[in-house]
Amino acid sequence: MTDRPEIAHLGSTTLSTADIDKSLWFFRDLLGMEEVARDGDSVYLRAFQELEHHSLILKDSNVNQLESVSWRTKRPEDVEQFARQLHDSGIETVEAPAGTKKGQGDSIRFFTPHGGHPFELYYDIDKPQAPEAIRSKLPSNSSTRRGLGVRRIDHVNLHTAADAVGPTEAFLRDGLGFKRRESFSAPGGGPLVATWTSVTPQVHDVAVVANPGNAVGQLHHVAFNVESYSDSLTAADVLRDHDVQIDLGPGKHGIGQAMFLYVRDPGSGHRIEIYAGGYLIFAPDWEPINWKAENFADGLTWYGEPFPLANHAMSETTSSTSKLI
Amino acid sequence: MTDRPEIAHLGSTTLSTADIDKSLWFFRDLLGMEEVARDGDSVYLRAFQELEHHSLILKDSNVNQLESVSWRTKRPEDVEQFARQLHDSGIETVEAPAGTKKGQGDSIRFFTPHGGHPFELYYDIDKPQAPEAIRSKLPSNSSTRRGLGVRRIDHVNLHTAADAVGPTEAFLRDGLGFKRRESFSAPGGGPLVATWTSVTPQVHDVAVVANPGNAVGQLHHVAFNVESYSDSLTAADVLRDHDVQIDLGPGKHGIGQAMFLYVRDPGSGHRIEIYAGGYLIFAPDWEPINWKAENFADGLTWYGEPFPLANHAMSETTSSTSKLI
Amino acid sequence: MTDRPEIAHLGSTTLSTADIDKSLWFFRDLLGMEEVARDGDSVYLRAFQELEHHSLILKDSNVNQLESVSWRTKRPEDVEQFARQLHDSGIETVEAPAGTKKGQGDSIRFFTPHGGHPFELYYDIDKPQAPEAIRSKLPSNSSTRRGLGVRRIDHVNLHTAADAVGPTEAFLRDGLGFKRRESFSAPGGGPLVATWTSVTPQVHDVAVVANPGNAVGQLHHVAFNVESYSDSLTAADVLRDHDVQIDLGPGKHGIGQAMFLYVRDPGSGHRIEIYAGGYLIFAPDWEPINWKAENFADGLTWYGEPFPLANHAMSETTSSTSKLI
Amino acid sequence: MTDRPEIAHLGSTTLSTADIDKSLWFFRDLLGMEEVARDGDSVYLRAFQELEHHSLILKDSNVNQLESVSWRTKRPEDVEQFARQLHDSGIETVEAPAGTKKGQGDSIRFFTPHGGHPFELYYDIDKPQAPEAIRSKLPSNSSTRRGLGVRRIDHVNLHTAADAVGPTEAFLRDGLGFKRRESFSAPGGGPLVATWTSVTPQVHDVAVVANPGNAVGQLHHVAFNVESYSDSLTAADVLRDHDVQIDLGPGKHGIGQAMFLYVRDPGSGHRIEIYAGGYLIFAPDWEPINWKAENFADGLTWYGEPFPLANHAMSETTSSTSKLI
Repeated sequence: MTDRPEIAHLGSTTLSTADIDKSLWFFRDLLGMEEVARDGDSVYLRAFQELEHHSLILKDSNVNQLESVSWRTKRPEDVEQFARQLHDSGIETVEAPAGTKKGQGDSIRFFTPHGGHPFELYYDIDKPQAPEAIRSKLPSNSSTRRGLGVRRIDHVNLHTAADAVGPTEAFLRDGLGFKRRESFSAPGGGPLVATWTSVTPQVHDVAVVANPGNAVGQLHHVAFNVESYSDSLTAADVLRDHDVQIDLGPGKHGIGQAMFLYVRDPGSGHRIEIYAGGYLIFAPDWEPINWKAENFADGLTWYGEPFPLANHAMSETTSSTSKLI
Repeated sequence: MTDRPEIAHLGSTTLSTADIDKSLWFFRDLLGMEEVARDGDSVYLRAFQELEHHSLILKDSNVNQLESVSWRTKRPEDVEQFARQLHDSGIETVEAPAGTKKGQGDSIRFFTPHGGHPFELYYDIDKPQAPEAIRSKLPSNSSTRRGLGVRRIDHVNLHTAADAVGPTEAFLRDGLGFKRRESFSAPGGGPLVATWTSVTPQVHDVAVVANPGNAVGQLHHVAFNVESYSDSLTAADVLRDHDVQIDLGPGKHGIGQAMFLYVRDPGSGHRIEIYAGGYLIFAPDWEPINWKAENFADGLTWYGEPFPLANHAMSETTSSTSKLI
Repeated sequence: MTDRPEIAHLGSTTLSTADIDKSLWFFRDLLGMEEVARDGDSVYLRAFQELEHHSLILKDSNVNQLESVSWRTKRPEDVEQFARQLHDSGIETVEAPAGTKKGQGDSIRFFTPHGGHPFELYYDIDKPQAPEAIRSKLPSNSSTRRGLGVRRIDHVNLHTAADAVGPTEAFLRDGLGFKRRESFSAPGGGPLVATWTSVTPQVHDVAVVANPGNAVGQLHHVAFNVESYSDSLTAADVLRDHDVQIDLGPGKHGIGQAMFLYVRDPGSGHRIEIYAGGYLIFAPDWEPINWKAENFADGLTWYGEPFPLANHAMSETTSSTSKLI
Repeated sequence: MTDRPEIAHLGSTTLSTADIDKSLWFFRDLLGMEEVARDGDSVYLRAFQELEHHSLILKDSNVNQLESVSWRTKRPEDVEQFARQLHDSGIETVEAPAGTKKGQGDSIRFFTPHGGHPFELYYDIDKPQAPEAIRSKLPSNSSTRRGLGVRRIDHVNLHTAADAVGPTEAFLRDGLGFKRRESFSAPGGGPLVATWTSVTPQVHDVAVVANPGNAVGQLHHVAFNVESYSDSLTAADVLRDHDVQIDLGPGKHGIGQAMFLYVRDPGSGHRIEIYAGGYLIFAPDWEPINWKAENFADGLTWYGEPFPLANHAMSETTSSTSKLI
């Protein structure tokens, strides 16, 4: 009862897209996700290793924006407890009753302070079986592996204004229970520029990175996990051959030690990361790794193409936020 | 204060070996582990992605047995709290002061009821830097990758008598906080035959499997994690070429969806698993997967060589337990 | 003029199938081959890295047999020269005019002596572009990679009666110019049991293996090449999940050092090998590797599941030959 | 007798190095090559899948240059026949008796016209067994896989002045029997800028690329082959962690469809490519792929970091030639 509410894991993101057919071709036909349901202007998808109802909602729209970053709590009662706690700290939440999103129970929604990102918290979620034609014989997979073999959502990377990274991380830590795992601060005691935080042993469930611009609620990318580095390479090969824009990679981050491949959903322009590998943090006393200016480039790219830090090509806004609801 | 004590992760195992030079050749020179320290008859090793002092202690001996399965707790006070709790449930613990094992703080030791496995709980552990010659430039690695690229300890698999799997799992769950993730029970409502349990999102930190024999404190294997399936294949290739005995694999488990490769430390005969991949469990309401007799073979081997269930070749004892200091 | 005629490479095989729809599902939809053309009861397919018209012809039939092993010659005039040479050595050939097989020029057909395998030699072959929807941007690929990523035909493995391996190899060497690369003879100066021969630097374009039975014109398997070991593993994963029968693998041959995965076309029962890696032979004075009885098992399986030599489960007939034409 | 002489394959390169100890650390200790012999100022190395005496000779020197590109002929008599033929076309050759290079028989040496690269042709070569401690159980490997798993020499890439690519290729084709596989010419009917040629089914045994400078006998890189893309990634990881300079990669060429990783031998500065995969050419009527200006960048980098064509960072001279003998 007096337990602090906790977040269990990233559940899904909702992305609006100006060309939903092209987005479906990308996520479903190329990446291999399952189309679980349609409802109004929304299409619900999940990857083959996800048992829950959806990890991606595509919303037919005339804009391309981040509509929701949805987190599952550890206990049913955590949703309400978070609501109280957020209210106490001055953050307004909106309740969305069960069914507002298909397959999902009661949730609360709010904008993160400083960053203005649309967050959602829920606990109840359906776990529908896949249609028999694609159902996996492995009980830990919902469906057979298809397309490029995307198997689950992995993390989100959010953009904020340069002075909002620190405050946003403070909210994630104090308000939601995330832990800093790796980070980078401007030299000479300058502000926090980028931070990788998680509630799971992953190095990050959510990263926050400074953006030269000012817009709020911006997404840098949503990452989907593939089983192996080889899957990343095959994805690069096939996506390239289908004229899907590759921003960077494949290459290996020093931060998190995972393979990155940044591509653009051709329907919406949202940046999507195909993500493989990485290390896990089990140590209860993990000391956050704070990168220094002289080796931060290694942190971003351990091998492969360097991040274009100078011209901010990687930091361009991909989507601004929608209104809440 | 009223919080239940918790285990954070598997820290190390101590294996005695009748041929420590050969065991060192295997773990250090072939698998690529770092020799961190020597102390009396013990050699302390860790893998390149481990920052803590050791994940394997080899002990020069005239027998080959499992000497300790050592778990790190979440908080310093958990060690003492576990001691009280174990005592209350009738399990005798022995305190080992800091330094009993090099680099390690105060610990408590006890035999698990029913299975008789030597467990140890501790919190404090040194995190020494590797010598400069092999120190990694990546702060999340202690040293550069060497040999076959073993990067961290992954899990242990323990053998018990056929009727002790259920009681052992009950102790792991009720006494230590492990959760069942996958399992197999004998057909017709028979006893639990095998169970995979964890305190982390891994499918198992410890598995318990029925052994046709009666001996107590037996080890089926200790698993070390490699970065990719390709690393498993290369390990099979190289170990085979060095006449290291391969029991089974490489192949893929349906249970856990990871690649297995079972080999024998040529110094001690202990079975070691080279382990890659697998899925992670973030769902707070994970329904344990209970395999049925008709597809349990798929659970053991999804692809690759089937487990020799009939003749129990895989279930032979590799080591019996030592006395608890 | 006085040059001996030469074979350039394996071009295609024709396999009849009693369930062509299921065979097409397997080769086209699962393995990812392109359906290039249909003609009467035949469907022509090729893999994404093949520029020539076809590497597999599936023939709707009420039997499942090997209809043709078709080899491309080095020069146009080699076809006729081989015809003369075969005639001189007492082997009857039949001429098939251009167009008998779609996309293919004049060919000659004959049964190999002793083994009775239906061979075909041709030079001219169309190189059609793939339809724009699947055309690759890489000029060395005909189409984009799809499905499980089979990229080209690799080799065939033929079964003969136990006493016909030696004579068949002699014909391949003296009659067609193949070179022995690796082999195995029965202990004590016994007959040749298995041989791997090639006209290219591959370790084998065609293998000949003794079969306990007596039937002629039998196929052990046709192999298709994938880009990497990881592709073999993914193929095993996905085929298993679609209930495609896996005979053996994935594992690594000592012979040829390649990864094997033997599966059955569910439409016809023909054994198909998914094949990856291997070494190439450039040495002009290559000494054939002749395996001894004591390590032949290593030659067959370097790591992974051993070949079931004892019970000949791997040597069962998969297909008997058709009439020539 | 009237047969044209033929080259079988690339045998070795000789590279002089100003810091032979560092070069040995790189090639032997990191890449995993075997030190086969020492003789005067030369150290002979080969990779684990090479049965012949050496594929790399490191020569202690005060300069870093390409000393020899050595090719093995198809027949013993080809060496002398090439000598006659070269003499007839006005190219002076020097004979080096057996033993001039350890393990190697009589050879002829000459500078290629236009490019001035030191070439050598030989047939006889020893095939020594590796010392028992590292000898492989696989008869097609000389030793066990070690270090980063380099398994054989793959190809060389030579630099010439901008106007010498065409004449050099003409010499390779007409004088030595190489075939053009892929190429790039300057737009508007301009001169040949780069060409990939081979005598084997590999896309290139030797490439020739225009260099903005004028120096003769220059090397762009020597490539060593690894078994898989994963090996390339591991090499990048480990070499990076040992401060070995990475020029570019890992990434995939469109040309040849292989994975590239360009690094510098820290002893000599010679550029070395770790090379994996690629397609093979068996078609006797292969049409060379001639890239156009608009997609040549894709040919160089299909995925991964683009080649720095603009500033010629990749085209810097790594070594100038030595005198012949």
